[in-house]
Amino acid sequence: MSAGAIIVWELLGTAALILLGNGVVANHVLRKTNGNNGGMLFINFGWAFAVFTGASIAAPSGAHLNPAVTLGLAIADKTPWADVPFYFIGQFAGAIIGAMLCWATYKLQFDDHPEPENTLGIFSTGPQIPNVAWNLVTEIIGTFVLVAWILLSPTYAAGDGGTPNFGNSALGYAGVSFVVLVIGTSLGGPTGYAINPARDLGPRIAYAFLMPIRNKANANWGYSWIPVVGPLVGGALAALLYLVVHNLT
Amino acid sequence: MSAGAIIVWELLGTAALILLGNGVVANHVLRKTNGNNGGMLFINFGWAFAVFTGASIAAPSGAHLNPAVTLGLAIADKTPWADVPFYFIGQFAGAIIGAMLCWATYKLQFDDHPEPENTLGIFSTGPQIPNVAWNLVTEIIGTFVLVAWILLSPTYAAGDGGTPNFGNSALGYAGVSFVVLVIGTSLGGPTGYAINPARDLGPRIAYAFLMPIRNKANANWGYSWIPVVGPLVGGALAALLYLVVHNLT
Amino acid sequence: MSAGAIIVWELLGTAALILLGNGVVANHVLRKTNGNNGGMLFINFGWAFAVFTGASIAAPSGAHLNPAVTLGLAIADKTPWADVPFYFIGQFAGAIIGAMLCWATYKLQFDDHPEPENTLGIFSTGPQIPNVAWNLVTEIIGTFVLVAWILLSPTYAAGDGGTPNFGNSALGYAGVSFVVLVIGTSLGGPTGYAINPARDLGPRIAYAFLMPIRNKANANWGYSWIPVVGPLVGGALAALLYLVVHNLT
Amino acid sequence: MSAGAIIVWELLGTAALILLGNGVVANHVLRKTNGNNGGMLFINFGWAFAVFTGASIAAPSGAHLNPAVTLGLAIADKTPWADVPFYFIGQFAGAIIGAMLCWATYKLQFDDHPEPENTLGIFSTGPQIPNVAWNLVTEIIGTFVLVAWILLSPTYAAGDGGTPNFGNSALGYAGVSFVVLVIGTSLGGPTGYAINPARDLGPRIAYAFLMPIRNKANANWGYSWIPVVGPLVGGALAALLYLVVHNLT
Repeated sequence: MSAGAIIVWELLGTAALILLGNGVVANHVLRKTNGNNGGMLFINFGWAFAVFTGASIAAPSGAHLNPAVTLGLAIADKTPWADVPFYFIGQFAGAIIGAMLCWATYKLQFDDHPEPENTLGIFSTGPQIPNVAWNLVTEIIGTFVLVAWILLSPTYAAGDGGTPNFGNSALGYAGVSFVVLVIGTSLGGPTGYAINPARDLGPRIAYAFLMPIRNKANANWGYSWIPVVGPLVGGALAALLYLVVHNLT
Repeated sequence: MSAGAIIVWELLGTAALILLGNGVVANHVLRKTNGNNGGMLFINFGWAFAVFTGASIAAPSGAHLNPAVTLGLAIADKTPWADVPFYFIGQFAGAIIGAMLCWATYKLQFDDHPEPENTLGIFSTGPQIPNVAWNLVTEIIGTFVLVAWILLSPTYAAGDGGTPNFGNSALGYAGVSFVVLVIGTSLGGPTGYAINPARDLGPRIAYAFLMPIRNKANANWGYSWIPVVGPLVGGALAALLYLVVHNLT
Repeated sequence: MSAGAIIVWELLGTAALILLGNGVVANHVLRKTNGNNGGMLFINFGWAFAVFTGASIAAPSGAHLNPAVTLGLAIADKTPWADVPFYFIGQFAGAIIGAMLCWATYKLQFDDHPEPENTLGIFSTGPQIPNVAWNLVTEIIGTFVLVAWILLSPTYAAGDGGTPNFGNSALGYAGVSFVVLVIGTSLGGPTGYAINPARDLGPRIAYAFLMPIRNKANANWGYSWIPVVGPLVGGALAALLYLVVHNLT
Repeated sequence: MSAGAIIVWELLGTAALILLGNGVVANHVLRKTNGNNGGMLFINFGWAFAVFTGASIAAPSGAHLNPAVTLGLAIADKTPWADVPFYFIGQFAGAIIGAMLCWATYKLQFDDHPEPENTLGIFSTGPQIPNVAWNLVTEIIGTFVLVAWILLSPTYAAGDGGTPNFGNSALGYAGVSFVVLVIGTSLGGPTGYAINPARDLGPRIAYAFLMPIRNKANANWGYSWIPVVGPLVGGALAALLYLVVHNLT
């Protein structure tokens, strides 16, 4: 697949992922919405099927949508290293575009919100209890589960080059959305399950530099590297597990 | 497929969609129901599987159920322009019938409701914060996601003439219901995600002219064109994206 | 298939359906349970996947689990009329067994419950607003949607003799469970969506005559015929629609 | 399949199951989490898709993840008795590892929790109303449903040696996760649906002897044998039902 096609498909899929994922948090956080205070399960379902929607759009490029997935597939020898930069470009560009579309969807609610300083959490994650080491552990474990599942579950393992062979069925991507649902319900408590550097850093950049929100908060750059490094480490460890198990059995 | 068959299948599917979609809001809004105050996720699941039910019934005609989907498929050259009026007729007729069946299901609750002027929202959408331009933006983005997914996801893209080839499995329509679920959780906050002109205008007409509800409100005709025009624009833009991407890759 | 096999499979499937369907209401209603006051969506999911579980167990007999479905399939010429009595026997016997197993599961909670007179609703449905005609309408519409979907959706329509051909995949029954989910969220508000004579009358008999619950209420026999007659009428009307549409297109 | 491979796959799958299953309860119970007080449906979804995730990872060994399932499959002559000990070893080792990973994910929340004596319930089940006989009945019925479904549903019944033949689709395991969802909503009220000796005893051992939680409670050893014996009895009874039905029909 050409570099341009990788960028286009990853951009479209990641933009859908972030528009819908950021959107459910906006619906929960902002006032004068139909989903105000919708709760954790509401948010978990939103993110889960945001993954379904984005992944089935990005099927031609293997539907990574996540630099930690791309890194894991590259280490596991399922995606060529030469393609990795194009995946990253599409993912970050898509994430920024998706965050801006979320802002446009909820523009009137942002204008009306009485606490604009509390809107960063719509776009990017933060810890309930800040602690560099243990916040990293949480993000590493969450991403490890995601990438280990992708590499070890029969659908993905059967595919060539990291592209699952669902034939012409978009329903196959329901599997990864179920896994993201349970990572959210079960491992999202302490840090908000970034588990994806593009999902966290892209919207953070959009929030800090692009969105015309009055009195918005700073973008918490001190924490911003944890949801980048943690997921990359988790994805890499999952790929190592895959290689070990693959050679053992 | 004959004009009559298109009308029959779209009518049956859209009637099921609107009966079940309006029904979940009735269950949430009206008193003396088992689902009173069921919440946003409850409503989102109702609409999502209303789509599943209606779409698998209307499989023979391609399960559009939505003029914005029909318009997008026509622009993308997947549905003949000559068939478009028959789709629209079936969709609007089905939406009116579905709304009347919802009223009959909850007839006793409508009679008992202490605030009959607050019942329009069961049938048609309205904005949390009225604003022509930004309400249109929200409806355009929501419908864009729906129609872009239909055109770009592998299942639909593989089908001929806009009819997905699920073989004999009704489960394939779970995909589009998952997408409608997440559009609801994530983009439904500001305007109630009409994303379908027939879904909004058909029941509005039924509410205004056909339902014998005492002291009911006016049908908010001033807003009524936004959930018609916004979805049609969103569907058309998604078709243009499809044509551009299809030629690029 | 032999009469005995029909009875065995329908009995096993319906027992699972009622054990799990009655169980989720018990979990919601009774005190000192983990699911106390779990809410309508909680109950809807319980019943929906109770259908999934029971239907995939009863796959060999076509997974009717419901006299209204059996009647509809017989009218539509998909189940031999001679088999109908054996389906009914299995369904009612299974429903009674399932209700007794639900009682056993929650035996300690029934003993502890301060309002034993309010426990009929765990096993059988009742109207929020009693009215013979409109309660019938609600049950007719709900069952009509269920049986129309079964007959018209591509999976079932393709099957021979009313048995869907899912091959060796139990997942196909997820479709009917999604339809029962949305019937619950959307049409279950006024009467509790019996939509199945065995589901309502079987446990009512078990409650009245078999369960050793202290101070229990009477079984509301005055209402008991509505969730029997309504679903049978709804199933028959859906079969007539199927025959009309089948001949038209 | 070699003894080592059985142990590896069951260990990986069960570790994922317990990490995610314990995780959703931690998210619900502990303070300063995003899912605090998320409710029963939230917990049910977490455990259901924990099963999906773990089962699709453990597909090569048949995805038992549960000694009661292994026992049932052995009695039903679908798993060789000689392999049973290796399944048990993998399951218990995986459960202990998964519980420790859950502790690590929520380490900061455990340190911060004001009532560390109330944390056993995150890892192991307990009865709402203690009673040896009836608590056993509840666990027997819950596990009976699980193992009867596995043995009788068409997907599993078609597989050879207890391994379902989903081809290369991980989505097949959604079926068993739907069944675990409804066992949770419907039969989980009285005892918390252990329905799996490894799921209950493994984390209980980890809690008692391995986790450095300050002021933690004792591990309630007096109850600990019920969620071991009950599920094994339930699984064995389901296998007997399978053998009887299999010979009858």
